[in-house]
Amino acid sequence: MGCACIMSPSSTTPHRLPSSSQRSSEVVLGHGSGGKLSQDLLETVFFPNFHNPILDEVHDGAILPLGHQRLAFSTDSFVVSPLFFPGGNIGDLAINGTINDLSMCGAIPQYLATSFILEEGFPIRDLKKIVQSMSAAAQAASVLLVTGDTKVVEKGKGDGVFINTTGIGVIESNITISPKQVIPDDVILINGNIGDHGVAIMSEREGLEFETTIESDTAPLHDLVQSILKVSSHVHVLRDPTRGGLASTLNEIAVAAQCGIVLEEKKLPIQPAVIAACEILGLDPLHIANEGKCLVFVPETEGEAVLQRMRQHPLGKNSAIIGRVIYEHSGKVLLRTTIESLRRVDMPEGEQLPRIC
Amino acid sequence: MGCACIMSPSSTTPHRLPSSSQRSSEVVLGHGSGGKLSQDLLETVFFPNFHNPILDEVHDGAILPLGHQRLAFSTDSFVVSPLFFPGGNIGDLAINGTINDLSMCGAIPQYLATSFILEEGFPIRDLKKIVQSMSAAAQAASVLLVTGDTKVVEKGKGDGVFINTTGIGVIESNITISPKQVIPDDVILINGNIGDHGVAIMSEREGLEFETTIESDTAPLHDLVQSILKVSSHVHVLRDPTRGGLASTLNEIAVAAQCGIVLEEKKLPIQPAVIAACEILGLDPLHIANEGKCLVFVPETEGEAVLQRMRQHPLGKNSAIIGRVIYEHSGKVLLRTTIESLRRVDMPEGEQLPRIC
Repeated sequence: MGCACIMSPSSTTPHRLPSSSQRSSEVVLGHGSGGKLSQDLLETVFFPNFHNPILDEVHDGAILPLGHQRLAFSTDSFVVSPLFFPGGNIGDLAINGTINDLSMCGAIPQYLATSFILEEGFPIRDLKKIVQSMSAAAQAASVLLVTGDTKVVEKGKGDGVFINTTGIGVIESNITISPKQVIPDDVILINGNIGDHGVAIMSEREGLEFETTIESDTAPLHDLVQSILKVSSHVHVLRDPTRGGLASTLNEIAVAAQCGIVLEEKKLPIQPAVIAACEILGLDPLHIANEGKCLVFVPETEGEAVLQRMRQHPLGKNSAIIGRVIYEHSGKVLLRTTIESLRRVDMPEGEQLPRIC
Repeated sequence: MGCACIMSPSSTTPHRLPSSSQRSSEVVLGHGSGGKLSQDLLETVFFPNFHNPILDEVHDGAILPLGHQRLAFSTDSFVVSPLFFPGGNIGDLAINGTINDLSMCGAIPQYLATSFILEEGFPIRDLKKIVQSMSAAAQAASVLLVTGDTKVVEKGKGDGVFINTTGIGVIESNITISPKQVIPDDVILINGNIGDHGVAIMSEREGLEFETTIESDTAPLHDLVQSILKVSSHVHVLRDPTRGGLASTLNEIAVAAQCGIVLEEKKLPIQPAVIAACEILGLDPLHIANEGKCLVFVPETEGEAVLQRMRQHPLGKNSAIIGRVIYEHSGKVLLRTTIESLRRVDMPEGEQLPRIC
């Protein structure tokens, strides 16, 4: 369904653009956006110091050779604000988020570690609710929470609760899932509507009400991924488009694969309520974080079979083939709009949606 | 060396004791102390929800069966304040801390994940210094930093930088290291002076100067541990006495082992400058966090051989046998003072030293 007006370049202007000297001398919110400034920080601070062949793969998680096994290993800290939102809270978000990063490596998630940074004065009853959600989410995905840590900081030095989860999964199949596997003519699938999580958070934060409540799509994707791997042995990449939305994720893949990507606007699944909310909030759905969504790159010959299998899954009813990989425009993402014009989809520059996860 | 005046009960009064209704309804600093309130939080919030056989072992890390291997898995978030202190900074502390938790499981640390929560406005040059220290500490211990995450929160919602590290290590020997293995007549060793880390942080925070600068003892203990495991195949427990100091760690072990523990005050290695600082700050050295120290429980017959091996190691020059496990006083820790009286060493109740790691 079309939403040309929302996806026009004019709506992608970031809300807070720090000066170039500011962002090179101090941390700005955009450094956590998942967009260009996040890349800057990686390239100027982290990668020069943490260089090694496993890290250099720049995946959602690391693939570790350990004995005769391959393990996936992934970490995420969650600082979402507000802590409770339609469809979930920081607890299930933290569990599902790391389950999904492991799933994107093709792994079956098995063990999680979790660490809490609590702010003095945070209500214990809220902490209990969050921990109960974590427990339920872990049980639902059959992962064991096996070790943890808790720190407390003074009032005014934190914000309620921050949660880190780090997970280990086992990669059972022999496939190699990596942006570098992507080749021209691969088709790109997604398992449903985009923008739900980001709009749910922003609506809650701004106190907006719509006719239908937009709920976060937080969900564990490991089972969907395993069902995809059963029908295709040529999955080239799996990636959950969280911070920075489809725009960031697809740009990263286009650069790594040294190919171009064309998205078809009229194929993008998106709720009308999300379109309406984006218009009010001045947001581009392609920049908005998703939490229970997965981009799948497979050869065109396998696209239809994968699509059908995805649609049979409870988390894939609105699955669609939304684009393809092309030889031209290497490293770039283009959108074919509803009026058949092509426009560049860039990474978000600054920070539209701070603390979305 | 003796320090009876410092270790007297009167000096253990916590600086901030919240009311009982306050600490059951909201988070207080003591919930992060590693003492009794930390135990309360575990028992009322975390364990009821996160119950499983691996977690229930309550070790410094989880021991995971994965294929034919046993892996150790451990997580810690670091919120130390100040970020830079004599002997180190939050960066090497975060690397060494998780290396040590893995080492205490008898594992050889292999892979680390790290996650940053940055506060808007934090100087990039300080972040670079921290990241360089992390890189150097990881290289020194031959561990690979393989995956990571960065989040940014608004100014006033964090405190410069918080760092999580989560690690995986491989357990190569067949030994079982667990507080439950501890039996009466085990002797207790430590690899050097106590209290250095906590006093270094507190001196920096309070702006105190002493004749000699007291430096944090942050160090990676994996190599020392492996050298101990080469001379003893009956190491019953290894534990690094960080938050809550020797008092918390030994009380936890005494409860888990259902034995008593007697410490010999005159055997406790401690720098005179630390004794002096504790007197000024009103702190009990037994409650103070250490970062590069390891408690080792072995049968008496192996005590001397382990002691000699530890003293040969660069991180064990001041090693000593500081106490033993007894049948009586189950679940309790006693200190035989320099004047030969026995006094109870309790867990710290509240929070003497917030944000020590």
